[in-house]
Amino acid sequence: MHLGTDTVHYAWDNELAPALELDGSGTVELDLLDSAAGQFGPTSTADSLGALDFARVNPVTGPILVRGAEPGDALLVRVRELSTGPWGWSANIPGFGLLAEDFPDAAFVHSRIDEKGVELDFGPLLPALPMIGTLGLALPEPGRHPLLPPSRFGGNMDIRQLGRGSSVLLPVGVPGALLSLGDAHAAMGDGEICGTGVETSARTVLEIELVKHRPIPSPILETAPAARRSGPALVTTGIGPDLRAAARDAARALVDETVRRTGLSPVHAYVLASLTADLIVSEIVDLPNYVVSLHLPSDVLG
Amino acid sequence: MHLGTDTVHYAWDNELAPALELDGSGTVELDLLDSAAGQFGPTSTADSLGALDFARVNPVTGPILVRGAEPGDALLVRVRELSTGPWGWSANIPGFGLLAEDFPDAAFVHSRIDEKGVELDFGPLLPALPMIGTLGLALPEPGRHPLLPPSRFGGNMDIRQLGRGSSVLLPVGVPGALLSLGDAHAAMGDGEICGTGVETSARTVLEIELVKHRPIPSPILETAPAARRSGPALVTTGIGPDLRAAARDAARALVDETVRRTGLSPVHAYVLASLTADLIVSEIVDLPNYVVSLHLPSDVLG
Repeated sequence: MHLGTDTVHYAWDNELAPALELDGSGTVELDLLDSAAGQFGPTSTADSLGALDFARVNPVTGPILVRGAEPGDALLVRVRELSTGPWGWSANIPGFGLLAEDFPDAAFVHSRIDEKGVELDFGPLLPALPMIGTLGLALPEPGRHPLLPPSRFGGNMDIRQLGRGSSVLLPVGVPGALLSLGDAHAAMGDGEICGTGVETSARTVLEIELVKHRPIPSPILETAPAARRSGPALVTTGIGPDLRAAARDAARALVDETVRRTGLSPVHAYVLASLTADLIVSEIVDLPNYVVSLHLPSDVLG
Repeated sequence: MHLGTDTVHYAWDNELAPALELDGSGTVELDLLDSAAGQFGPTSTADSLGALDFARVNPVTGPILVRGAEPGDALLVRVRELSTGPWGWSANIPGFGLLAEDFPDAAFVHSRIDEKGVELDFGPLLPALPMIGTLGLALPEPGRHPLLPPSRFGGNMDIRQLGRGSSVLLPVGVPGALLSLGDAHAAMGDGEICGTGVETSARTVLEIELVKHRPIPSPILETAPAARRSGPALVTTGIGPDLRAAARDAARALVDETVRRTGLSPVHAYVLASLTADLIVSEIVDLPNYVVSLHLPSDVLG
């Protein structure tokens, strides 16, 4: 079974007509638009961001109705195949991102995605770690709900480890479950601090299975061996009584340190961190201060 | 040069007499007490926690004065050797930890630490990943400051990756820097959610080097290749508008899922997560909801 990009939609809405129906389980191949729904391309520039139509952002392919699914069940989705590229984009979008106040100016980055990895137009070559940013089920509340924020039914979770070989168990919110997905990334750091990864179109093959009578409060994943990182890293810290402020401090420190070591511009250092640095809570119990750390693989520093 | 545990102290205080003085750089071997300063041992039980003297918690060995260090400089500390064990303890200490309200009862766990790894008395065998929980410099503010919370000068950061082969750069707060350290763990998860790792005494060899005119806002690390994890993982999520609440939701979900899969008691599942599960911020930009995820290596589930 195949779902093409003619089935994309731009909101969570449990009244949408299903694009496909499954009898409890099945394998489906899907085409996914990039998160700007094709509004950007290889000739785009920072100026192109000003013309972005936000009503057509974060498209998801679907929904897939699973017959017999009811609230209290869960839907198990395994990513069997995922291919991205050959072109990707990343951006600093004014007003969006963890350091929006520090980076008011638009920036646009192109990537070439091939067997060598992800080559950014400002230099660094990153390993390709394709993942699906948005994957979720319809909410029980009626009406249209925006796709940008995640919910307990999944959606735009941006869990970096949700790539090939990983699986996710989602709580069913409405009869039929109504699965949709999109927002593939060829590379992304945990936290996606500037708000974009390497945004790209993709093709994926999913195994979908209904699990009856399996109430869970929010998504649970089993991640593939390759989905985590094990190399040396440059790590900056934010330490204080507010987790988000600590994350911002760690991000600012990583931008500064990357600029110092590489000569990259601050905004490129910020985007690079979003694409490959992982945001970790190192300490959350020794009140009143928390430690948030941001881990950039050392090899991207050259 | 060697510093023994006769030099431990129980507060950050920039008027403490140095235990050792270095001329700008040097290599020092240090003995570290465990975080309960020897108040527990192989015969301790949950009842022993009630007698814990909190005035003798989190001892640090030091301070080491580095001649010539001034505010605006940084101190580079590289962990050349670190050995822990052979005995370790972990605990649920009532009133302490990310899920303190859920786990009001004391629990005490013994570990045997040897070449096979870290064997917990309730079953799981963890890989040994020795690290130093507390390492920092004296604060510029006068008086005694508690050792439990970290500060921008380091201290109880509990950064899991600060083990053998890693280095940390610390901002100097007072003339002479005044380095102290302790709180070694034979294993710990990012976040240390129940408040303890595998607490143990340790011996370490540090290379210390003064870096003049290097102002940094908070500690910066370079971590060794082995310090991160790359295996498959069971991942739970917390999704919502408050990062700490999301972390708590992810922790509760992991406890439930671990109990479901292993039959461990809830408090053992909670302690196991503290010892080996990593707390990651997956999404921090798609307001109003964040995604915090907690990653437990699959192999500890047996």
